[in-house]
Amino acid sequence: MRNINVCLSPALYEFYAEDDSVVVMIDAIRASASICTAFHSQVELIIPVSDVETARSYKEKGFLIAGERDGYKIEGFDFGNSPFNFTEDTIKNKKLAFTTTNGTQVINKVINGTQRNVNLIIGSFINISALKEYLLHQEKNVLILCSGWKNSVNIEDTLFAGRLAYLLKGKSFELSESANLAIQIYLASGNSYYDFILNNSPRLKEKSEFLEADFKYCLSENLTTVVPFFNKGILTC
Amino acid sequence: MRNINVCLSPALYEFYAEDDSVVVMIDAIRASASICTAFHSQVELIIPVSDVETARSYKEKGFLIAGERDGYKIEGFDFGNSPFNFTEDTIKNKKLAFTTTNGTQVINKVINGTQRNVNLIIGSFINISALKEYLLHQEKNVLILCSGWKNSVNIEDTLFAGRLAYLLKGKSFELSESANLAIQIYLASGNSYYDFILNNSPRLKEKSEFLEADFKYCLSENLTTVVPFFNKGILTC
Repeated sequence: MRNINVCLSPALYEFYAEDDSVVVMIDAIRASASICTAFHSQVELIIPVSDVETARSYKEKGFLIAGERDGYKIEGFDFGNSPFNFTEDTIKNKKLAFTTTNGTQVINKVINGTQRNVNLIIGSFINISALKEYLLHQEKNVLILCSGWKNSVNIEDTLFAGRLAYLLKGKSFELSESANLAIQIYLASGNSYYDFILNNSPRLKEKSEFLEADFKYCLSENLTTVVPFFNKGILTC
Repeated sequence: MRNINVCLSPALYEFYAEDDSVVVMIDAIRASASICTAFHSQVELIIPVSDVETARSYKEKGFLIAGERDGYKIEGFDFGNSPFNFTEDTIKNKKLAFTTTNGTQVINKVINGTQRNVNLIIGSFINISALKEYLLHQEKNVLILCSGWKNSVNIEDTLFAGRLAYLLKGKSFELSESANLAIQIYLASGNSYYDFILNNSPRLKEKSEFLEADFKYCLSENLTTVVPFFNKGILTC
């Protein structure tokens, strides 16, 4: 039996990491939905970078650059972190450097970790069925790694982790304690993701006035079948 | 308004800690119930220690010593970590040094933290109403600090945190995102703590055969009104 585990904060990654596993990186609102959208719109590749200045340096190399800090677009960047930015018109066959408050930090944490033979893939509600199929057809343990919010646990990534674990449950996967915990959060949502998340997150509630469309998009299942993965320093698909 | 926050793993403490707060340390199964039971049985004081050898050194100073590693009593110790050890017959007016896999490590983490003016108190189901009254009658923010299991998130401490936050909700307290998350776990339990925890924790399920009585005791509300607190290196009441 393979194992599904859930790590609720990137600061806990070292306690959950193992060799020869698939790590599903999730920053449900909004980085991982944006990355999936960009690949759906046929971006050529994405380089996730942790800091703003490194992202800027890619501009001179012909990349488009996208990023946010605390939810806001960074000055001088081509895009913020709204998935609606990443249409075919803007991104097809282009190279993108991307930095966000949480998501891209998490990717780099896994890449620079000491675990061997870890496959890192990007998970979001918008590609969740494709993700499920991908995970069913490989032979490794699965770790769903939540980006959280500045190392604190957040509700939307926990809910997503529960939803994905729920989809894989019983299909030759054993669930860890934290996977069960996440499933309880998913079940508590009654599949009303948007209302549930806003009722439980003062942080997102505050932003929902001007980001409602983004949030609803990020919480929609199966808008794409792409499963972006990390390979030799770049995200590709 | 005061704030209730929940930290689901001691490894995340630095991201949740703040000055001038009350930290409720919780290791629901079993350390915090054992500590409360010992004070209910009129132990004079408890010194929480992180390692086995330090605990042993207290034996020569006339202390009783108690402790476990991975759930098992340590060789040569007077007691393990079962709350049933701590009766008036064994513990009244005695001094106790105590070390556990998770709980006492967490206490020492808070004590050695850099936050100023932090009150550290011990929370468990068995003193939960007394705890609620204590927290209502002070003017500080509350952080419920779960001991977890070897820095991973666990179900029983999360459930307890949710239960306590639920009791305080609406009573001039604002709930953080992780407090809401914990409340969802409490609500999902339907107040059937024992069955819910065993269904969601392979770790506790495995141990339940020989620790059922301990678990059920630790999950019983309001067996005592003591609220142990930390003062100058010792736990007292």
